[in-house]
Amino acid sequence: MTDAQALIGTIDHAVLAPDATRCDILSACSLARELHVAGVCVHPRWVPTVAAALDGSGVATGSVAGFPLGATTTEAKCLEAMQAFESGAAEVDMVMAVTTLKSGDYDEVLLDIAAVVQVARDSDVDGALVKVILEMCYLTPDEKRLAAEIAVQAGVDFVKTSTGLGPHGATVEDVALLREIAPDGVGVKAAGGIRSLEQMRAMLDAGASRIGTSSTATIAAELGIDV
Amino acid sequence: MTDAQALIGTIDHAVLAPDATRCDILSACSLARELHVAGVCVHPRWVPTVAAALDGSGVATGSVAGFPLGATTTEAKCLEAMQAFESGAAEVDMVMAVTTLKSGDYDEVLLDIAAVVQVARDSDVDGALVKVILEMCYLTPDEKRLAAEIAVQAGVDFVKTSTGLGPHGATVEDVALLREIAPDGVGVKAAGGIRSLEQMRAMLDAGASRIGTSSTATIAAELGIDV
Repeated sequence: MTDAQALIGTIDHAVLAPDATRCDILSACSLARELHVAGVCVHPRWVPTVAAALDGSGVATGSVAGFPLGATTTEAKCLEAMQAFESGAAEVDMVMAVTTLKSGDYDEVLLDIAAVVQVARDSDVDGALVKVILEMCYLTPDEKRLAAEIAVQAGVDFVKTSTGLGPHGATVEDVALLREIAPDGVGVKAAGGIRSLEQMRAMLDAGASRIGTSSTATIAAELGIDV
Repeated sequence: MTDAQALIGTIDHAVLAPDATRCDILSACSLARELHVAGVCVHPRWVPTVAAALDGSGVATGSVAGFPLGATTTEAKCLEAMQAFESGAAEVDMVMAVTTLKSGDYDEVLLDIAAVVQVARDSDVDGALVKVILEMCYLTPDEKRLAAEIAVQAGVDFVKTSTGLGPHGATVEDVALLREIAPDGVGVKAAGGIRSLEQMRAMLDAGASRIGTSSTATIAAELGIDV
């Protein structure tokens, strides 16, 4: 595997624009198949479409839960995850209950994440993954550390910096912090505002193992891959 | 009732900031009780808290479903509405499936809204209301008209311009369009970017019957009401 292929293989190609159409979604799936990215991340309504379009490609279908604010109920997040796994998704990026964390209800934050992790473990999907988005742009330094520790305790597969819809996305410092806190076996996903190869390399150097971006075509071009 | 009271009584006081805390939510409820606004609109996780804080006040507890992108499944939106009504909400502001409309799947948009309306009708809440947020900032003029017609056909109680989290909020033109399309008995809610009495009056003059704002204290002060 070339360096370029290894880099592209860390990308979750995100198609989360509020006004994305079926055509946008299908184009993204074509690009994802061609480039062999890690996954395509879409809103719940598009999971069956994406799972069909990616069938047999080795590219994972990913969905979101409680996205992008994390302020839905635990039951709603679980239903979203359950439906996603039943409809062909292998990975769900859930948003932590930011408002609950900021209110000091840490046990509730833990239970919220753990419930979605349990949905993945109970699903029929081999290797179903749950990533928890901490939306670190809203958190103080102490809250960032605490949120990551809670997520790890809840049993997530990845801790993720950002939704991409907040005031800012991933920072190198936040990625390094997550890498420091997450034990071996728990990945770090950097997302939000990553639009170039240089930014992507900085995130990987800081400890990210997965990159969420909608600028996949741009990054592939920078790597000299024609798409 | 004074003119000031009548105006304040059209307000749904929104507390939808992604990082709002329990303290912010409870302060909002105190303000809402004091001013006798129409309702307080919060994220699903806060509905029980708000329903308890507003108990006996005559101020409605409101929640959201599929907020703010509208791209969750119909089942998830229905669960959110059901839980809200069971937890003390009287009103649910759901977001239309914008991506689905923009993909031309109009029947699916209709079914998505109608399902949430049915949840309200099946609930034990007398006078349960469903407002559908069209998030008009993403729609073409033709789509705006079509979306409003579909919402009316689906049986909603209110058509609403915006979530307040999109590129722009309510415009006078959009409110007038909704008022033109909505029959008697279907209200129009203007929301997003309404931060002054002048803006609020412009929306009411254009045909809005409900105003969503988080600037309630500012507007009350402009009306000469001490809070």
